[in-house]
Amino acid sequence: MDLDHDALTIGIDLGATSVRVAAYSPAAGLLETSIFPTRIAAGPVGVVDDIGDNVLRLLKVYSRSRPCVGIGVGSPGPLELPAGRLHAPPNLPGWDKFPLLHELQDRFPHSVFLDGDAKVAALAEYVLGSGKEFSVDSLCMLTLGTGVGSGIILKGRIWHGASGMAAEAGHLTIDPAGPICGCGNAGCLEAYASGTAIVKAAAHFAADDTHCFSPGRADGTHALTAGDLAIAARAGDPEARSIYDGAGRALGIALADLINLLNFPLYVIGGGVAQSWDLLSSSIFEELHRRSYVYRLTASDGPASQAFPGGTRVISSRLGPEAGLLGACILPLHAPPHEHEEALGDSQPDPHATLR
Amino acid sequence: MDLDHDALTIGIDLGATSVRVAAYSPAAGLLETSIFPTRIAAGPVGVVDDIGDNVLRLLKVYSRSRPCVGIGVGSPGPLELPAGRLHAPPNLPGWDKFPLLHELQDRFPHSVFLDGDAKVAALAEYVLGSGKEFSVDSLCMLTLGTGVGSGIILKGRIWHGASGMAAEAGHLTIDPAGPICGCGNAGCLEAYASGTAIVKAAAHFAADDTHCFSPGRADGTHALTAGDLAIAARAGDPEARSIYDGAGRALGIALADLINLLNFPLYVIGGGVAQSWDLLSSSIFEELHRRSYVYRLTASDGPASQAFPGGTRVISSRLGPEAGLLGACILPLHAPPHEHEEALGDSQPDPHATLR
Repeated sequence: MDLDHDALTIGIDLGATSVRVAAYSPAAGLLETSIFPTRIAAGPVGVVDDIGDNVLRLLKVYSRSRPCVGIGVGSPGPLELPAGRLHAPPNLPGWDKFPLLHELQDRFPHSVFLDGDAKVAALAEYVLGSGKEFSVDSLCMLTLGTGVGSGIILKGRIWHGASGMAAEAGHLTIDPAGPICGCGNAGCLEAYASGTAIVKAAAHFAADDTHCFSPGRADGTHALTAGDLAIAARAGDPEARSIYDGAGRALGIALADLINLLNFPLYVIGGGVAQSWDLLSSSIFEELHRRSYVYRLTASDGPASQAFPGGTRVISSRLGPEAGLLGACILPLHAPPHEHEEALGDSQPDPHATLR
Repeated sequence: MDLDHDALTIGIDLGATSVRVAAYSPAAGLLETSIFPTRIAAGPVGVVDDIGDNVLRLLKVYSRSRPCVGIGVGSPGPLELPAGRLHAPPNLPGWDKFPLLHELQDRFPHSVFLDGDAKVAALAEYVLGSGKEFSVDSLCMLTLGTGVGSGIILKGRIWHGASGMAAEAGHLTIDPAGPICGCGNAGCLEAYASGTAIVKAAAHFAADDTHCFSPGRADGTHALTAGDLAIAARAGDPEARSIYDGAGRALGIALADLINLLNFPLYVIGGGVAQSWDLLSSSIFEELHRRSYVYRLTASDGPASQAFPGGTRVISSRLGPEAGLLGACILPLHAPPHEHEEALGDSQPDPHATLR
């Protein structure tokens, strides 16, 4: 694929509370971004109408000077591919069986490319972030936000599995008797390391309003966030520290599973909670060394690193909160039409060759 | 690859207690099999000498009438690929850093193809067993023996990861506070569902020699096996049943992790312990339904099976204890030289097209 650096794409980051729509070109990056609330009450068609208005406005402004090569969308899951249909998404009530790809494609004159939100974030990290920095061909990214999303890039391409539902690392079981997760399981990674789980773990302490991170500490209206807890932890609060320590341990156990299974060169932790990498990393690496002999043998800073060139790296995201939107923007440049139906063995250009 | 059905291969299944060496052709199957003890005390070079004698004898007999296309080897791990070097294999003391591929290749006039024992078993299951039966392009196999091995076939090829150590599903953490595993971790799948773990779990009951599966029950010299326990469980012994139930639950948790991560169409349980599928399956499926929403959505017998053609299947192996040896025999027919260094994107024939 010979990328035109002046080509235009439109990226759509569909979230449960807000939608971001951006115009993008490889040469200029993000040209303009619109953010608007997700009108859940208007139903899926109402939200798609809002998206349509914003996309058409951006196309009108930017497609005069640049040829639009496609519209990329990152969506919450579970998302069935290649059909592009949602299956009872927990954060989008009323969207069960909604044919999102079909409804979007009907509104635009350009091809629509739809994928999972964490999968497109992983694509962005691969093409524009740490994948580029370390010249790897495969990586696994965990996105710690309201939930824990995950994306696998395998030999330069998003890994979808048989029906688009691969890479659900947020639902790896960490402790079979652990806290209940929204998916119905007990002890999922998401129930320890999402922003929601971190706030929930703090509720016990916060109920005591003499506590430094009690909800009453500021103006009485501010809802406690994982970021507030990180500030408290850095200030030395022992409960806040232990909550982040627990999240780090769960991440370490999940990463040990992933490394033992995938033997990839790179694992990336992104999303809002990853901004507290300083509070998470020591327990992550402690669990990794204990639980993954593949990590012990191949760690990039380990004793055997000479035997395993490149080794195994676990790092925090280079792109920060923009990863999801950037991934939606570059998806049309990296996902050939009908990709999901093609064999992985088909020839595929290395995106690094054209975008680096 | 245009397979010659009358071609000859030699397969070597290197185990910690015995070695099996076989002559094989696609048309005739296993032509002759030798089994001899693994002389651990003779050191790795001594064992490779024994293997060499047996291979050269089989070549002398069978390569007169058929062209030998290569020698395939399945080895215990950890095995570094493409170098073909072992790294402190727990069941082969004295073999740390042993260059197995190099030592074998030096002895033979034909190309040697080396891979992990569970990986070649998965290849056999894919080419000759359930992969063929269900016409899938990818599968994950767990082999329950002395340990728990695992192999991933991805779009028709063994998945190795960056250094040959992928697919170590036996070391997925089931319970972070569970029994200690030989790998140094606590609560690995192997510590619940291997034959060794099942016998160990019974030791507590067996110490009471009035118990129906006490070691003294038969002739006093017979060491308790997982098979003895299966017989006791089928006869209604509650402790034996609960041990198999626990192994099944651990397998269900691991399979839920694998399905959420890989979204493959087929998962196969093989090895000696899988012969007790009748004792394992109900707890496996109970955990799967509880812990994997990807399984609930896509199970081949589930309510949504129409939406997901083919769906997700979890079954016991079709090949039984021969899978590892057969996999070693067919490895030269399916692994092009330098496969590990090639991109997964390279064109690769579908083995089903030629061997079905």
